[in-house]
Amino acid sequence: MPIYSRFLNELKAKDIQRVSSGQLGKSLNITAAQIRSDLSYFGSFGQHGYGYRVDELLEHIRHILGMDKLHHLILVGAGNLGRAIASYGSFRDRGFAIQGIFDSNPLLEGNFLSGCIIQPVSKLEEYLAANRVDIGVIATPRDASQDICDRLVKNNVRGIWNFSPIHLIVPQGFIVEHMHLTDSLLRISFKLREIEQRREETK
Amino acid sequence: MPIYSRFLNELKAKDIQRVSSGQLGKSLNITAAQIRSDLSYFGSFGQHGYGYRVDELLEHIRHILGMDKLHHLILVGAGNLGRAIASYGSFRDRGFAIQGIFDSNPLLEGNFLSGCIIQPVSKLEEYLAANRVDIGVIATPRDASQDICDRLVKNNVRGIWNFSPIHLIVPQGFIVEHMHLTDSLLRISFKLREIEQRREETK
Repeated sequence: MPIYSRFLNELKAKDIQRVSSGQLGKSLNITAAQIRSDLSYFGSFGQHGYGYRVDELLEHIRHILGMDKLHHLILVGAGNLGRAIASYGSFRDRGFAIQGIFDSNPLLEGNFLSGCIIQPVSKLEEYLAANRVDIGVIATPRDASQDICDRLVKNNVRGIWNFSPIHLIVPQGFIVEHMHLTDSLLRISFKLREIEQRREETK
Repeated sequence: MPIYSRFLNELKAKDIQRVSSGQLGKSLNITAAQIRSDLSYFGSFGQHGYGYRVDELLEHIRHILGMDKLHHLILVGAGNLGRAIASYGSFRDRGFAIQGIFDSNPLLEGNFLSGCIIQPVSKLEEYLAANRVDIGVIATPRDASQDICDRLVKNNVRGIWNFSPIHLIVPQGFIVEHMHLTDSLLRISFKLREIEQRREETK
């Protein structure tokens, strides 16, 4: 779904109004059948032979993805990665606003980052008791991340977005999405090795 | 594979020497059958009833993932995200070394970042002609990223690691891995919406 959303936004930016499942599939490297199946998820409004209306499709996908409402985020960990996440512009445009930033380093306390004051991580519970938070972003060192995750879960933060390099465990009814940079890099290395092997075999 | 690698490293750090496919599956949320199928990829060396030897499994996976050799990386784009990537420690330990950094901003030229001098992006071709590069990391704004990608591909950089928020296109025989932050965030939002709906239905 996010992939469709991004691609459809690109079409819209180019002022393209209709798109067929075949065109979508070719651009996104997915079979047309898979696309029709994915999109049937929210009822059939593609017309056979006419394709989908880009704006209509976008609106449905935005709804499915919960992009039509504001999400309240906090960020724990204001190191290099945390700072990069906080300054990444395109979240806010899509309804994801970081409204609190926490770090355990007292030297960072009181500094501003993307419009938020960095608060000590000891104030986390106090903040969560007073503010609604949908998603907690964890960009702490690996040793701290499961503990932070547990504290967020305990205070009913339902979504965890994890940038630390370990596999976090959450109870049922909670969501964790891992952004493991090294995993992604290893996938490249794995595929490069496959390509090399194939080239050697055809020599 | 990267997920196995990470988890097995965690076991090793805890001095655990054997693991069964059932234990692996439970910890990683994968069925034991799937795990046996994945691991059969590199020959059967798990003994029935005894599980796998952690160190043996790790070594095989490291080989499969190409982690037993050094990968030469360059980074294009030394903004917030680029800086975070360059300072992310755990790549180098796994054989991924960023050896060149490029940016189009003349104010950054000559600055040091993680042991590299930031070079003007106009010097990219010159650098690629003189140095072996396996993976190009793209952390530029969206408008520049496909152009940078094309220049890398033209100079035979086989692996592209894309952090810019658009879908990059590469020819066959080249690898692109997308790290789309917003996609990952939208997946959380999508799943949170599902959880909410389920809770409302059971009310």
